[in-house]
Amino acid sequence: MGQENGLNDKNAQNGSDKAETESGLARIEFSGSNPFQLFREWHGEAREVNLVSPDALCFSTCSKDGVPSSRHMLLRRLDDDGFVLMTDGRSRKSNEIAENPLGSLAFLWSFRKDGSIINRQVRIDGRVEDLPQSSCQEIWEREPLYCKIRANICDQGRPVDWEDHKRIHDSWYEECLRENTVPTIPDHVVYYKVIPTFMEFYLAHDNFIGDRLAFHCTDKDAKVWKMGRIAA
Amino acid sequence: MGQENGLNDKNAQNGSDKAETESGLARIEFSGSNPFQLFREWHGEAREVNLVSPDALCFSTCSKDGVPSSRHMLLRRLDDDGFVLMTDGRSRKSNEIAENPLGSLAFLWSFRKDGSIINRQVRIDGRVEDLPQSSCQEIWEREPLYCKIRANICDQGRPVDWEDHKRIHDSWYEECLRENTVPTIPDHVVYYKVIPTFMEFYLAHDNFIGDRLAFHCTDKDAKVWKMGRIAA
Repeated sequence: MGQENGLNDKNAQNGSDKAETESGLARIEFSGSNPFQLFREWHGEAREVNLVSPDALCFSTCSKDGVPSSRHMLLRRLDDDGFVLMTDGRSRKSNEIAENPLGSLAFLWSFRKDGSIINRQVRIDGRVEDLPQSSCQEIWEREPLYCKIRANICDQGRPVDWEDHKRIHDSWYEECLRENTVPTIPDHVVYYKVIPTFMEFYLAHDNFIGDRLAFHCTDKDAKVWKMGRIAA
Repeated sequence: MGQENGLNDKNAQNGSDKAETESGLARIEFSGSNPFQLFREWHGEAREVNLVSPDALCFSTCSKDGVPSSRHMLLRRLDDDGFVLMTDGRSRKSNEIAENPLGSLAFLWSFRKDGSIINRQVRIDGRVEDLPQSSCQEIWEREPLYCKIRANICDQGRPVDWEDHKRIHDSWYEECLRENTVPTIPDHVVYYKVIPTFMEFYLAHDNFIGDRLAFHCTDKDAKVWKMGRIAA
């Protein structure tokens, strides 16, 4: 039963041409053995179809005693062995990762194409490793100005007064313009790599029941994978 | 620092009219005290702007010993005290909920409007309660045919052979058409309500640093809330 991934049952309301009484079974075509290859294909297409946030993912962590939390983040870099994220090391998720270095990612790409509704999901579970700032320098460098200011003025999740915050922002911003500088990276910016032990791909379109491919990693470097098809 | 919610730093690549050197501070305007009201406003607008999956959310659970998992689902109904989901009671998440009835939801609505990129996120943490099937009958009834077939033929997450699965699907589908019937709800379909203890709203647009409103519940029925503004 696909309610877990049942993202396509509103198709009739959202622009699919398919009649409501139609029914079928989607099929993921993939002849490779490495799920990173399939991820790259799907991620590439999500970028091509002009989605607003093709790099957005939901990142879930939990405390050691089992309280889950989740929030959206951006994929900052895709390495051959994992998914690189950037955040504030003083945040709730960083505290959770420090005591329980496990994470779960979920990407969702929903779009219309050639009269069809397409829903693709990739789920990734794995361990979370710290990366040194120095190995992610290019990520910081391509941040736009306002993100660099934000990284410096926001203590993520801490109480803030909007007017005070605005004054601080404006002072940073004006100084950057006046001096023609950009803020440097603060120490509290941290980078993580999620190294997957499990990856799952879900495809549904129109009134077609979802198809799912699950990959379990059998080594510790995310290189050797066992694939299976599972019910939606 | 807003990397957690830093969903808008690709605006320049994705259709925002704003120059890359611009910077500002977004502001959520809300004069009420109940976060469900703000949720309804944002959810309503997400439906109006013709997003493909305005009801999609990422649902995270974890095992008792702290292994997180996440997947996208659909919001099936919004009650005054919680968020109703539907799934297969034999799934991984149902096993996790049975041993650890806590859940975390995250909605993300990213869209273009009037030359701007808007990113809104709502995060919801709370306890998960089982609902009787009988209290959710209307949810089942509005499922399209193919979803009703899916609920009957899919044992979620279990290995499946595509060709076998297709034959089973086709036989159900042909019988429905021939007999002019729809499949009834199987026993393993379960409904959950996530009753929030925490809700958080995030807004960012263009090159504006995100604003966040956090609501903490101070009673057990999701009625009394304490609101605060926090850094992105």
